[in-house]
Amino acid sequence: MEIVEVGPRDGLQNEKRVLPTATKIEYVSRAIAAGLRRLEVVAFARPDRVPQMADAEDVLRGVPRPAGVRYVALVLNGRGLDRILALDPAVRPHEINYVVVATDEFARRNQGMDTMASLDAFRTVAARAAEAGLGVTLTVAAAFGCPFTGEVEADRVRDVIANAGPMTELCLADTIGVGVPAQVTELTAAAREAAPGVPLRAHFHNTRNTGYANAITAARLGFAALDASLGGIGGCPFAPAATGNIATEDLAYLLNRSGLPTGVAVPEAAEVGEWIGTELGLAEVPAQLGRAGDFPAGVGG
Amino acid sequence: MEIVEVGPRDGLQNEKRVLPTATKIEYVSRAIAAGLRRLEVVAFARPDRVPQMADAEDVLRGVPRPAGVRYVALVLNGRGLDRILALDPAVRPHEINYVVVATDEFARRNQGMDTMASLDAFRTVAARAAEAGLGVTLTVAAAFGCPFTGEVEADRVRDVIANAGPMTELCLADTIGVGVPAQVTELTAAAREAAPGVPLRAHFHNTRNTGYANAITAARLGFAALDASLGGIGGCPFAPAATGNIATEDLAYLLNRSGLPTGVAVPEAAEVGEWIGTELGLAEVPAQLGRAGDFPAGVGG
Repeated sequence: MEIVEVGPRDGLQNEKRVLPTATKIEYVSRAIAAGLRRLEVVAFARPDRVPQMADAEDVLRGVPRPAGVRYVALVLNGRGLDRILALDPAVRPHEINYVVVATDEFARRNQGMDTMASLDAFRTVAARAAEAGLGVTLTVAAAFGCPFTGEVEADRVRDVIANAGPMTELCLADTIGVGVPAQVTELTAAAREAAPGVPLRAHFHNTRNTGYANAITAARLGFAALDASLGGIGGCPFAPAATGNIATEDLAYLLNRSGLPTGVAVPEAAEVGEWIGTELGLAEVPAQLGRAGDFPAGVGG
Repeated sequence: MEIVEVGPRDGLQNEKRVLPTATKIEYVSRAIAAGLRRLEVVAFARPDRVPQMADAEDVLRGVPRPAGVRYVALVLNGRGLDRILALDPAVRPHEINYVVVATDEFARRNQGMDTMASLDAFRTVAARAAEAGLGVTLTVAAAFGCPFTGEVEADRVRDVIANAGPMTELCLADTIGVGVPAQVTELTAAAREAAPGVPLRAHFHNTRNTGYANAITAARLGFAALDASLGGIGGCPFAPAATGNIATEDLAYLLNRSGLPTGVAVPEAAEVGEWIGTELGLAEVPAQLGRAGDFPAGVGG
């Protein structure tokens, strides 16, 4: 089971303390050392709106490039892709993750256009990215609920996906952490109907303590990848009350112990989670493995 | 789906600050007002080992007795039952919850005898309690893992249950919060083989962020009751690194939103969770609903 480490992007972007580029590069290197192989390391967003991501190009230039490691960059519009294509091909990300929000109200606040207009923009960007050899993930944000308009119906998510056009991967995101496993099952059926054969990825926040139950449900339903952040840090700057991602070390504990090996070493990942929390000046990270200790290795700890 | 509120017992017993009896009674009353109907309110343990429970008789004398509300008392040995039977029948608990630990090492540390000896003691106490008209739950503690000896095999849990004799209910407890859903499935099969037809209850801690995933798994497997504590407070004084129970308000959110209504009002339960945290002097409770807000009612919150 693949864990996509989104800490360097989703974990950081909501944090007030802007980390130096060198610290971000160390963060990525430490994540790789803990066993992560696919990492969402930057977003191409407006620096005035997401200051933490202003050095996206420098981060991509600085991160190590070992064989087997793939980098993802989050993109919100064509200008984000322009910035990627302006980079030397050797330091580009391997994939883009393009966000379309499931509800019009949240879409307008996030990207200045409604969902269908943002799908039009996605199709253009996706075609250009594919031509440049980049993988293309479509993330449907707020698929499990919207902070402004409440419930999101599965039919709406199905319509959004059906209008998206070609993609390499489809990611269902519970941006504000309201979803439950029954919704995972329902939205998975909708996604498979609207985009048959497209590999699925999921993005859960643990805002209401349902994130790990949703994650194991997605894993059992055959999702190829799950997003998580070391330490469980993160949120969304434009979604009220959105708290941390599910934590990489806790998710790896859950999956490894469930017979779904992730390649992530739990104690090492927990150390990185504690380290990034310290770098961000957090008193404590949401991840629990760093405090509780691995099991059975951590017996008595 | 029934939630058993164990905060007044398991939530409090590990807390250093001993609450006045009147506060404990208010705690129970507030829990009932939030919709809880079955509450584990005291333990009959040695006051020198569990000072928080020294006033068990006074708590039972003081709590309200509305129709439909049932009280449970945790019991570790025959002396605990003696104390219950010494009470006026009008203020006795409706049920006892007798703990037997799955591993010998932990059993000896907890009750001074190995598991099989403690099953002998259980059979005697269960017969006396049933004769006095009390419901009898057997809780198999550390069924998902032991803090001293590590992994616990499903075969061991099956043997423990098969040797227990008659009971009203069987509770599988992940005392130190190491379990994953696959273990819930495996142990459920073992329990049903060893005690066919006995209603099942589960007790999860969220020490490694797997508690809610385990709880929804148990609910889907047909468990009749799930333990939780308002605010997610609690632990076990004799289990190293054991942290809080799963939180009543967060579990109620998960179950209510999954089409498994609990009768618990999430916002009211979250208020009680925050209140008991304040009474205990905690900076923050582990429960998340109090901070995140209900959904969709809490949209934007």
